[in-house]
Amino acid sequence: MTATLPGHLDHLTDRVAALRQETAALHAHLPGNGLVVWTAGNVSQRLPGTDLFAIKGSGVPYDDLTADDMVVCDLDGRVVLGDRAPSSDTDAHAYVYRHRSDVGGQVHTHSTYATAWAARGEPIPCVLTMMADEFGGEIPVGPFALIGDDSIGRGIVATLQHSRSPAVLMQNHGVFTVGRTGRAAVKAAVMCEDVARTVHVARQLGSPLPIAADDVDRLFDRYQHAYGQ
Amino acid sequence: MTATLPGHLDHLTDRVAALRQETAALHAHLPGNGLVVWTAGNVSQRLPGTDLFAIKGSGVPYDDLTADDMVVCDLDGRVVLGDRAPSSDTDAHAYVYRHRSDVGGQVHTHSTYATAWAARGEPIPCVLTMMADEFGGEIPVGPFALIGDDSIGRGIVATLQHSRSPAVLMQNHGVFTVGRTGRAAVKAAVMCEDVARTVHVARQLGSPLPIAADDVDRLFDRYQHAYGQ
Amino acid sequence: MTATLPGHLDHLTDRVAALRQETAALHAHLPGNGLVVWTAGNVSQRLPGTDLFAIKGSGVPYDDLTADDMVVCDLDGRVVLGDRAPSSDTDAHAYVYRHRSDVGGQVHTHSTYATAWAARGEPIPCVLTMMADEFGGEIPVGPFALIGDDSIGRGIVATLQHSRSPAVLMQNHGVFTVGRTGRAAVKAAVMCEDVARTVHVARQLGSPLPIAADDVDRLFDRYQHAYGQ
Amino acid sequence: MTATLPGHLDHLTDRVAALRQETAALHAHLPGNGLVVWTAGNVSQRLPGTDLFAIKGSGVPYDDLTADDMVVCDLDGRVVLGDRAPSSDTDAHAYVYRHRSDVGGQVHTHSTYATAWAARGEPIPCVLTMMADEFGGEIPVGPFALIGDDSIGRGIVATLQHSRSPAVLMQNHGVFTVGRTGRAAVKAAVMCEDVARTVHVARQLGSPLPIAADDVDRLFDRYQHAYGQ
Repeated sequence: MTATLPGHLDHLTDRVAALRQETAALHAHLPGNGLVVWTAGNVSQRLPGTDLFAIKGSGVPYDDLTADDMVVCDLDGRVVLGDRAPSSDTDAHAYVYRHRSDVGGQVHTHSTYATAWAARGEPIPCVLTMMADEFGGEIPVGPFALIGDDSIGRGIVATLQHSRSPAVLMQNHGVFTVGRTGRAAVKAAVMCEDVARTVHVARQLGSPLPIAADDVDRLFDRYQHAYGQ
Repeated sequence: MTATLPGHLDHLTDRVAALRQETAALHAHLPGNGLVVWTAGNVSQRLPGTDLFAIKGSGVPYDDLTADDMVVCDLDGRVVLGDRAPSSDTDAHAYVYRHRSDVGGQVHTHSTYATAWAARGEPIPCVLTMMADEFGGEIPVGPFALIGDDSIGRGIVATLQHSRSPAVLMQNHGVFTVGRTGRAAVKAAVMCEDVARTVHVARQLGSPLPIAADDVDRLFDRYQHAYGQ
Repeated sequence: MTATLPGHLDHLTDRVAALRQETAALHAHLPGNGLVVWTAGNVSQRLPGTDLFAIKGSGVPYDDLTADDMVVCDLDGRVVLGDRAPSSDTDAHAYVYRHRSDVGGQVHTHSTYATAWAARGEPIPCVLTMMADEFGGEIPVGPFALIGDDSIGRGIVATLQHSRSPAVLMQNHGVFTVGRTGRAAVKAAVMCEDVARTVHVARQLGSPLPIAADDVDRLFDRYQHAYGQ
Repeated sequence: MTATLPGHLDHLTDRVAALRQETAALHAHLPGNGLVVWTAGNVSQRLPGTDLFAIKGSGVPYDDLTADDMVVCDLDGRVVLGDRAPSSDTDAHAYVYRHRSDVGGQVHTHSTYATAWAARGEPIPCVLTMMADEFGGEIPVGPFALIGDDSIGRGIVATLQHSRSPAVLMQNHGVFTVGRTGRAAVKAAVMCEDVARTVHVARQLGSPLPIAADDVDRLFDRYQHAYGQ
């Protein structure tokens, strides 16, 4: 139990409080979009410009999640602030933050359709324009990895290296997404389940039509630059 | 950013405000019926008797949608009122309004089951009486078309020309519906996903029984004239 | 528009008001259990000991349903009280009330999984103990019938005559259920979709195991006599 | 109707009141997670250190469940407190409490995907890390058993004896789960449906990859000891 930041991080107190608040609020999108049951899944966010990130406490239910349930860790996954044990996925998140300085937020879920592709070890083919927009190609599969060391984090980073996708399906396990912010990673998790479901449904009754690779490129480039406000 | 209508449209101020309000409210049916995730999808409505329509701003979430998030455009898709960039589908909506004077409202979604049929490029066969009622036959498939010019709008108009259906499945993309009003287009989008799902489920375990063409005609004629208040 | 009961029914005013109120309230179970979209589906209830029943007005949305949206008809389907046109299924309900004096309530839906069985014209086999409890065997399929005369009502009555099931799947159309009360018919509609879905899912990956006919009988007898308060 | 505890149990009045309250509240997780429709399903909890347990009244709807709807029984399933008839599954719960002193809570549902596996009499294979975590292997199938004597209870106890799983699929029937507490049994019921659905979906398009038996062991051991707060 660590109720206040260590002295040398004291100047970050207000920013850390805001980060915990925002990270707690982002979690509502997970049950809200049907991506998690019970206490599974988590969102983390890096405090920009620091070696700290906030992540959900282990086994905390979504109903009554508050900023106090968010644990602040350093990039080795050690707790620096918070009354709770951090998510059992903290080591994976920490590994990704250490090796991907561009990543400011991460999400992990066992969302049904995406996890079903992961259970077969099969990437989701890019057969929808919205998939080209958000993922720029197929959603790739990472290795089977046990929890408890760097295996999951290494698998995420290695798999995403060869892909424009912000989502990776960890074999027999579930989905990990990354983003410049926590919100972007949440969006990728929501879209990942949505396209996993739609492509599954399409495949149940036949073969989805392919989208030409250069059309995928055009859609991805346009969406990444022109979409939103 | 265009906070007030140009001078020559000044007399429309009150009607435009009401249109934006009503269009914002219609959007609630999209997440309410499970047709959209995150910020995907949009509703537009023409201001009757004018060359203006209101449409959702690009990338705006559904949770906190207000009249101010609705952008008013002319029939070339140029913004005439609103602080936001309009939906990236604005050009498609504008094309349809230009070429179909009978259309007063449009909806676009990536709803799961309809989009799955679209991914296979397969029309939804008319095997349910409620499909005959609302769509008067199969729901047709339009061409693969990239966003960014008139391709999507042209595909919608050309495909619906040969059909009584107010809905078209754009290949690898999603659903576009039209109606005399925004509400009618929303209804078509809700019904389209409903029948796409039911026919999908029916097909998973065998072959749905066909409905004779003249029974489809009778159902369609009766429903279009007798249903409702 | 018939704002008050005809003179000879004047003594029923309070009971009719209560019936409309209760019937309106029962409708909440339809969207609440995912059995209907938009304005589809309806509940009706007979006023016990009379030749009157209340039914939903045609094309009325579920969101803002009140007692005033319930239309009171006689057993020929003629409106005796209410400002609205009655449901387009009123003739079917009236036919059933005329020919089944034991029926006090009816429900009609296009719920997804049950309607998918109906689209294939395939009865739902009794492979779940909860199906034996509530339906006493398979859920049967009635004929294809057009709306507009007695065809649907005749099909319902004829099909249920040879069955213990309170639900019938009308081919290419949807579900009709009956009960001693409106509440019992609503329960049958909820259970029908639930077992339609579960048996569908079971069948997707193989063959459900059969339940012996005398075990079905035992379960049905026990449930009809011993269950509840 | 038994409005007060028998005299020799009088000293338990406050603890029994708290147990009924907590058991009523746990029921909200069943409809909240889509595990039940109408009045199906139930949760029970033993009063620790006694031969009493609380269970849902028979046929009570979930909407308006209160502590008063919870019936308190002894381990022979006889009512000791409560105005209602207890759940028709009370004998099964009582049998399990009599034969498994480690069990403090139980849940019964007909949740869709788990019940579909049960209808085929097919155990759910352990192909997800979250299944290894919670169930330590496959979810086993118990025998077909009629309600009305000890058959269901015996089937549950005998099947779980050879398994680390807290859930059993009773053939053609549904799911029973056990836990040290009511909350643990509820969690098992929620997770059971979640993995039943995900593995079903995975199997629809091919074969899930197996997880090696010793990896299942490692995951189970870690989760049982390290997860949560």
